[in-house]
Amino acid sequence: MRACVIHGAGDLRVEEWPDRPPGSGEVTVEVEVGGICGSDLHYYRDGAVGDFRVVQPLVLGHEIAGRVVACGEGVEGLEPGATVAIHPATPCGACRECTSGHRNVCRRARYLGSAALVPHVQGGFRERLVVAADQLRLLPETMDLRRAVLAEPLSVALHAVRRAGPVLGRRVLVTGAGPIGCLVVAALRHAGAAEVVVSDLLDEPLALAARMGATSTVRADAPEDPAWPEEVDTAIEASGAPVALRTCVERARRTGTVVLLGLLPPGEVGLLANRVVTHELTLRGAFRFDEEFDHALSLLAGGLDVSALVTHTFPLAQAGQAFDLAGDRAVASKVLIDLAGG
Amino acid sequence: MRACVIHGAGDLRVEEWPDRPPGSGEVTVEVEVGGICGSDLHYYRDGAVGDFRVVQPLVLGHEIAGRVVACGEGVEGLEPGATVAIHPATPCGACRECTSGHRNVCRRARYLGSAALVPHVQGGFRERLVVAADQLRLLPETMDLRRAVLAEPLSVALHAVRRAGPVLGRRVLVTGAGPIGCLVVAALRHAGAAEVVVSDLLDEPLALAARMGATSTVRADAPEDPAWPEEVDTAIEASGAPVALRTCVERARRTGTVVLLGLLPPGEVGLLANRVVTHELTLRGAFRFDEEFDHALSLLAGGLDVSALVTHTFPLAQAGQAFDLAGDRAVASKVLIDLAGG
Amino acid sequence: MRACVIHGAGDLRVEEWPDRPPGSGEVTVEVEVGGICGSDLHYYRDGAVGDFRVVQPLVLGHEIAGRVVACGEGVEGLEPGATVAIHPATPCGACRECTSGHRNVCRRARYLGSAALVPHVQGGFRERLVVAADQLRLLPETMDLRRAVLAEPLSVALHAVRRAGPVLGRRVLVTGAGPIGCLVVAALRHAGAAEVVVSDLLDEPLALAARMGATSTVRADAPEDPAWPEEVDTAIEASGAPVALRTCVERARRTGTVVLLGLLPPGEVGLLANRVVTHELTLRGAFRFDEEFDHALSLLAGGLDVSALVTHTFPLAQAGQAFDLAGDRAVASKVLIDLAGG
Amino acid sequence: MRACVIHGAGDLRVEEWPDRPPGSGEVTVEVEVGGICGSDLHYYRDGAVGDFRVVQPLVLGHEIAGRVVACGEGVEGLEPGATVAIHPATPCGACRECTSGHRNVCRRARYLGSAALVPHVQGGFRERLVVAADQLRLLPETMDLRRAVLAEPLSVALHAVRRAGPVLGRRVLVTGAGPIGCLVVAALRHAGAAEVVVSDLLDEPLALAARMGATSTVRADAPEDPAWPEEVDTAIEASGAPVALRTCVERARRTGTVVLLGLLPPGEVGLLANRVVTHELTLRGAFRFDEEFDHALSLLAGGLDVSALVTHTFPLAQAGQAFDLAGDRAVASKVLIDLAGG
Repeated sequence: MRACVIHGAGDLRVEEWPDRPPGSGEVTVEVEVGGICGSDLHYYRDGAVGDFRVVQPLVLGHEIAGRVVACGEGVEGLEPGATVAIHPATPCGACRECTSGHRNVCRRARYLGSAALVPHVQGGFRERLVVAADQLRLLPETMDLRRAVLAEPLSVALHAVRRAGPVLGRRVLVTGAGPIGCLVVAALRHAGAAEVVVSDLLDEPLALAARMGATSTVRADAPEDPAWPEEVDTAIEASGAPVALRTCVERARRTGTVVLLGLLPPGEVGLLANRVVTHELTLRGAFRFDEEFDHALSLLAGGLDVSALVTHTFPLAQAGQAFDLAGDRAVASKVLIDLAGG
Repeated sequence: MRACVIHGAGDLRVEEWPDRPPGSGEVTVEVEVGGICGSDLHYYRDGAVGDFRVVQPLVLGHEIAGRVVACGEGVEGLEPGATVAIHPATPCGACRECTSGHRNVCRRARYLGSAALVPHVQGGFRERLVVAADQLRLLPETMDLRRAVLAEPLSVALHAVRRAGPVLGRRVLVTGAGPIGCLVVAALRHAGAAEVVVSDLLDEPLALAARMGATSTVRADAPEDPAWPEEVDTAIEASGAPVALRTCVERARRTGTVVLLGLLPPGEVGLLANRVVTHELTLRGAFRFDEEFDHALSLLAGGLDVSALVTHTFPLAQAGQAFDLAGDRAVASKVLIDLAGG
Repeated sequence: MRACVIHGAGDLRVEEWPDRPPGSGEVTVEVEVGGICGSDLHYYRDGAVGDFRVVQPLVLGHEIAGRVVACGEGVEGLEPGATVAIHPATPCGACRECTSGHRNVCRRARYLGSAALVPHVQGGFRERLVVAADQLRLLPETMDLRRAVLAEPLSVALHAVRRAGPVLGRRVLVTGAGPIGCLVVAALRHAGAAEVVVSDLLDEPLALAARMGATSTVRADAPEDPAWPEEVDTAIEASGAPVALRTCVERARRTGTVVLLGLLPPGEVGLLANRVVTHELTLRGAFRFDEEFDHALSLLAGGLDVSALVTHTFPLAQAGQAFDLAGDRAVASKVLIDLAGG
Repeated sequence: MRACVIHGAGDLRVEEWPDRPPGSGEVTVEVEVGGICGSDLHYYRDGAVGDFRVVQPLVLGHEIAGRVVACGEGVEGLEPGATVAIHPATPCGACRECTSGHRNVCRRARYLGSAALVPHVQGGFRERLVVAADQLRLLPETMDLRRAVLAEPLSVALHAVRRAGPVLGRRVLVTGAGPIGCLVVAALRHAGAAEVVVSDLLDEPLALAARMGATSTVRADAPEDPAWPEEVDTAIEASGAPVALRTCVERARRTGTVVLLGLLPPGEVGLLANRVVTHELTLRGAFRFDEEFDHALSLLAGGLDVSALVTHTFPLAQAGQAFDLAGDRAVASKVLIDLAGG
């Protein structure tokens, strides 16, 4: 079969990849749609995401949906032809994090399309994928797979909102209006946030954020814009830009919360630490998700309208173009790869 | 009367200061003992603490205990001669923080001996102080005022431990073995922490931390020392050194908590932000205290043994020497000023 | 002026009540609309609410909105003619609850139209009311006072939802579809609850609950109805019926939360205590509200659609009929008194 | 081998029980000491604990320590002769509770000596027990097994204290001074509770509670005793008596917490529900424990002094007498069975 494989910074190839039959408890899925994530882009540009460096060919992709082709021994409740979304994480189930309810930070978790472990865990931008049956979520027949594929980034957003603590009736700042930032906006509004202010350096993502429910938008490079709130209850950093972290800390009110969601540059990033002390701020990291995946699918099935997020779709053969465009934030937001169409 | 007044960086004078009679609801206290705090030292060295700069003569001192001399109109339950500790903070009672249970970060709080407001709130290193009656706490007759004066820094430590969340049975790292770090150690042990590891650059403060209950001590400049724990549940940064914040973030386990207690240098300090994200750490500022003051006094009255912390006592006339010595961490920990003895 | 006064169980009179000018910091409000609350009904039927018994004539009413008539000395920002909602609670500001962020349970709070204190705090079902200026909330000019008057019960509902902890994506049971139960449903949906199941003994309130956003409704007397969820994450008891509390405890999943919102009969009520133990349930009381009032007004101004809740409006002269009808749950939900129309 | 087997209410027999070799991953332990728990007593008296009824012969006992005799295939790190304590619970690892950090309430957990499942999980009051290796905790050679056997009930107490939330500096009421209540007292003091008031109907358990660290004790049948605190921050119900639950609810301050730890009679128990509402109390069930077992062993190894709790030890042959005595609260607290001595 064909797969979208990264070999190093800038070296993305659509090439042949070995197939294998499903083992016991496993299922072969014909992948139909894949969404390009910020971490996929990092692998493409830098050959690494944070501290995770590509050291062997890696099939990218962890936002995927498709159709069951064959079931291994012992698999029940799944028929060939059924459409499914795929939970990309497999926590170990035994470590301290897993047994204490924090499976999303399991130190031995396997995550589709990630270089965190060596050998790497191969991802889902390929024509067929063999995965454990318990990673599959059966979809309603009527559900568009282009919609289902958003469940993964929406789960990330829902998890970040959960980490933010109570947001009902609160004023929240979201820095960064990329696909994740926009889904955070949608999740915050769904969770009853009274005001959601979004900042970004570009107008196009801000326009999209407004469509996702932002109550106001501000240009990150216009600090004097009166639309900036003097203080917010909660700030969610979704851009990965150090200057945005500073903005979050400056705008959070005393005893407020700042969620760090966007992956920041490796090493040290500047923090207004004294403000954290004297304002008794709380900073919380938010990483991946666990059970939020089912909630995300349920929201998407129930009609949560985030379809404007998908700006482009490319066939697998044009994966390189898809990646190039996905990196152009002025033009694209979420870019999909159509793996079914060939 | 005489008072210990800072006029600018390095310019500390023992000089005459005007007296006044107690107003309605106020009490005149003859101050007997004062403790020199890290922030007093900052005013002495830098003429400023963080962003608060001395712009007019400021009587230092907010760790004080003494004896009631005279009561203004309407004051009940306090007789001349009674020994008292003094709560240094007066929150406004009306702002959002005050009405939501966070009086310690009241944006309009008055704090003895602080340049946060202009005109400054004059402090307690003086022979007589007029304060509101509700700032006084009556002491048991048998309680040594040199012990009572530790209630203020102990309150800071207790508040930081509260901010840390549950510590019962947990392994905790404390960076910095100054007076506050040592009191954090005592508070952690009192709260049932199973292990308390303390780091510092000097051996003398570490020896004191061990006396306060540290289960192990490590030199901050010996990162290979096997006594360093691989990971801790909780870390409390009590040194004010940026490198120590880094240590806290590096040593905290996934989902662990880092409390920022020590005032760090103004502006930005390096943070391993990606580790906060991928390990889902929680960072919390801890600032001052509120009701912990009564708890601290109760612990001290009940025999919590922190007396080793007091290494030196000087008469008011030698306040300059007291401040100089208090800054020498290899020799001194908590330095007291005896205001009664003249 | 005329007022709606309870003299004892069943003895409700519309009668003359003395007027007075506003004092310093006070405002005279011409009350235009009042909503009849469950506690008003309890006073009417039983001469008491829980342990609070009417021992002197009491003007009922704490859900009120009106128009500024005159301002006392020192009042700023309010002009005669302005429409306002009135926060019914005045916490003392000094007790342990007030200083720790729990003003809603202040032990010395004054609450409009309540027999909790003697002398009673007189309520707002009267033509003119003198209140402290800081109890007033200025309304948008376009806001119907019949809508504004729902802010008080909506605040109660929002507070209960806050007490429930995170509800985003959760399945929630609400027992009781009276006005408060219905507003809890609306608040839960607004806060992102995935499923809201509502139970009641009558079909009419259930139909209203469905309009407020319930995802399914069940008859409390049909325990075999398959619409009953086997287990819910959270249950909110809003009926005041002991059997409903039992239902909540039986349906809550392990580690789930049950919020007690409805006032239950005085004395002891049966609790499946062993289930609380073995399932590690959490039960939380929810009482009144504090800052939720502003949030409620903001939601109502922003278009939260709860207008179906108001089933009837009566002039003050027919207050007795209004109360009689408000007690007939098969016919009425929220019943208003029009105090402006005479 | 011989075992202590319950056949129904009052029918306790020391009789032969089949032996078996350890399977893969299992270990055979020669049980040396067993502690009689309140639930063992319930099985003895009533043939049931709460809703769990003995329907087949059941070896009692889940507080046990002993010595490794033989290891099955694949077991590492355990040598014959090593002394061990045994964690009595085996959660399923897959249910919603297990994956969300609440393994102690796993709906499919196996617990030594419990009739919760059918067939029952056979317990540890027998000469030899085969258990999974991961249930064993290696003990320091110097640790008396009579001390180690207290780890199980101490874990229960530690878990209840954790469920109580912050207790540092707080005033706590414990109702019931049986072995669990006494260990709760020790755990509370270890966690820094400022005051621990204990109530019981008998003087002897109260005297023991005082030795465990209670700051005051009161007779439950002397409600006018001035030693009763007017209000407490937290109450832990450890008696299983409905009237004690009432006391906890009556004495808890506004916004206080009541932990339900003692198993109460089946069915409904009276609750002052309106007080829960108007005082915004929080009630929390506390059931078993999970990781607290390691903490308990560490505390016992470290010298936490709870040895006074053990009032009697009987050889296995006199198990009946041991159970009879253990039920006499005026004479006995924790009663041990010596299974090594024959």
